[in-house]
Amino acid sequence: MRVLYFDGSRVFLDHHYPAPEPRKNEALLKILLAGICDTDLQIVAGYMQYKGILGHEFVARVERAQDSTWLGQTVVGEINISCGSCEQCRTGLGNHCSHRSVLGILNKDGILAEYATLPLSNLRIVPPSLAPQQAVFCEPLAAAVQISNQIQIQPTARVLLLGDGKLGSLIAQTLALTGCDLTVLGRHPAKLNDLLKHTANITVQTELSSRYDRTFDVVVEATGRSQGLQLACRYVKPRGTVIMKSTLSHRDNIDLNKVVIDEITIIGSRCGPFSAALRLLESRKVQTDFLIEAIMPLSQGEEAFQQASKRGSKKILIDPTR
Amino acid sequence: MRVLYFDGSRVFLDHHYPAPEPRKNEALLKILLAGICDTDLQIVAGYMQYKGILGHEFVARVERAQDSTWLGQTVVGEINISCGSCEQCRTGLGNHCSHRSVLGILNKDGILAEYATLPLSNLRIVPPSLAPQQAVFCEPLAAAVQISNQIQIQPTARVLLLGDGKLGSLIAQTLALTGCDLTVLGRHPAKLNDLLKHTANITVQTELSSRYDRTFDVVVEATGRSQGLQLACRYVKPRGTVIMKSTLSHRDNIDLNKVVIDEITIIGSRCGPFSAALRLLESRKVQTDFLIEAIMPLSQGEEAFQQASKRGSKKILIDPTR
Ligand SMILES: [Zn+2]
Ligand SMILES: [Zn+2]
Ligand SMILES: [Zn+2]
Ligand SMILES: [Zn+2]
Repeated sequence: MRVLYFDGSRVFLDHHYPAPEPRKNEALLKILLAGICDTDLQIVAGYMQYKGILGHEFVARVERAQDSTWLGQTVVGEINISCGSCEQCRTGLGNHCSHRSVLGILNKDGILAEYATLPLSNLRIVPPSLAPQQAVFCEPLAAAVQISNQIQIQPTARVLLLGDGKLGSLIAQTLALTGCDLTVLGRHPAKLNDLLKHTANITVQTELSSRYDRTFDVVVEATGRSQGLQLACRYVKPRGTVIMKSTLSHRDNIDLNKVVIDEITIIGSRCGPFSAALRLLESRKVQTDFLIEAIMPLSQGEEAFQQASKRGSKKILIDPTR
Repeated sequence: MRVLYFDGSRVFLDHHYPAPEPRKNEALLKILLAGICDTDLQIVAGYMQYKGILGHEFVARVERAQDSTWLGQTVVGEINISCGSCEQCRTGLGNHCSHRSVLGILNKDGILAEYATLPLSNLRIVPPSLAPQQAVFCEPLAAAVQISNQIQIQPTARVLLLGDGKLGSLIAQTLALTGCDLTVLGRHPAKLNDLLKHTANITVQTELSSRYDRTFDVVVEATGRSQGLQLACRYVKPRGTVIMKSTLSHRDNIDLNKVVIDEITIIGSRCGPFSAALRLLESRKVQTDFLIEAIMPLSQGEEAFQQASKRGSKKILIDPTR
């Protein structure tokens, strides 16, 4: 089958990759649509030292499964594959399983391919009202929703979001749903304007003067850039909370003394609940169509990665059936 | 008067420093006993770019004050001098006042001197049952107590303390009072043994194997060393909490991706409540005598700093009356 492969130094289309064989508890998935996200770009820059088929954001059709009720279902899938028996798994933290593999990120081939496999327990059925180009946003939207899963965003909170990128635009919309006083600081006026058009009651800025230093209750760092955390610590109030979303292949040194002096709380935030993300997509509480830059065939996968890594690029979707 | 001064490059005894003049709301303090802590050593290494009289841990007698009820009282003093009117001050976060000065740390001469001044509102009366060499531990003990002021340490929690130094030994004792399952990881067997003798129900270690990776609910980082935070993130559970106590003049780069991936919470922690510290000292719930290395006269202040910066040194106290 055709797959988009990363060998540790470059991304290329492999036309003759062996098709995967599902294990007993797994489904064989025909990938209908896939997304490229910043994590994929960081992987290609060296993050996680991953080698294999890229990609973890997808919509698929179940082609084979021992339990026949799954056959033909349109699904999305949680990306952490956990052991089910370690301490994390036993205490409900399967996403943090000590023996996990992660789709397209850690010891498990990804989904930028014609076919892939995943355990049935990872699959979530897509409601019929959602088109593939909407459902494909389920994984990053779940990561956005994870923020309010971890901390309470009070409707009276002054919240600053750093980053107007692919993940940032989803986070902005989920934060706005809490009713909080939200400012989005980004570097791309066109994206910020788009976001403003599709999200009620937010403020967008391309710069914040020093009078905003130490004034936000919560700052969400989703810049994907090395200096994002330093910036977050600058704008957050003493005793405030910084949510850290960016994983980076390289990070500059930052002054962590400010974390101690201002008694800042930093909370790392990763994968989130698919169930909530599907509800928000189905109810149209979160908009995604304006976030799409292009849908490209798998045959142009190499070009798709180049386009996705251009500054200011929106979401590139890949259609592996073409 | 005689003072111990840091001019940005070296520490020296100045015999002819002008005595301070208390303002209307301030007391003139005759310093009876003072302590050298790691923050002082970091300042001498460049932290905060501070220049002036060093020191912030003290016991003093009030020599002059407009309100005569203070005269002759033995006092300790909170080190943050706040404006009383900024947003932080108005919301009860005076320690985080945007316009604060900090005794011996930021824009305010310290107490390694015969005399010093502080606002009356910063002073706390020392109970008569406490000797100066006990009360002088009030400031660092308050910083230790601040941890359980910020987060709930459950009696069932598995807690790891990194650091057996001056602050670490106080933190160990306050954490042990919660009944938690406490392990102290340090580099000085003699100090760890001392700590064990004076603290019930703790475990001490000079090494922890990899089977302790990701196993502690809470890790308190009080190593005063650059790699402490990395170590804390290694031992803490996914979704666990790291309390960060060390401020450093220099810090090596650390891998913050683990904070995101394991969804770790990092909480900076600085100054704490003197009232609680005085209660713990008065009730002898926290022992301090075994933490003292020497009491030296101010005339030997330069030597005292050299001795305090030796690896494994315990608390050096300075008597400015000698
Ligand atoms: Zn992603
Ligand atoms: Zn597991
Ligand atoms: Zn101190
Ligand atoms: Zn103030």
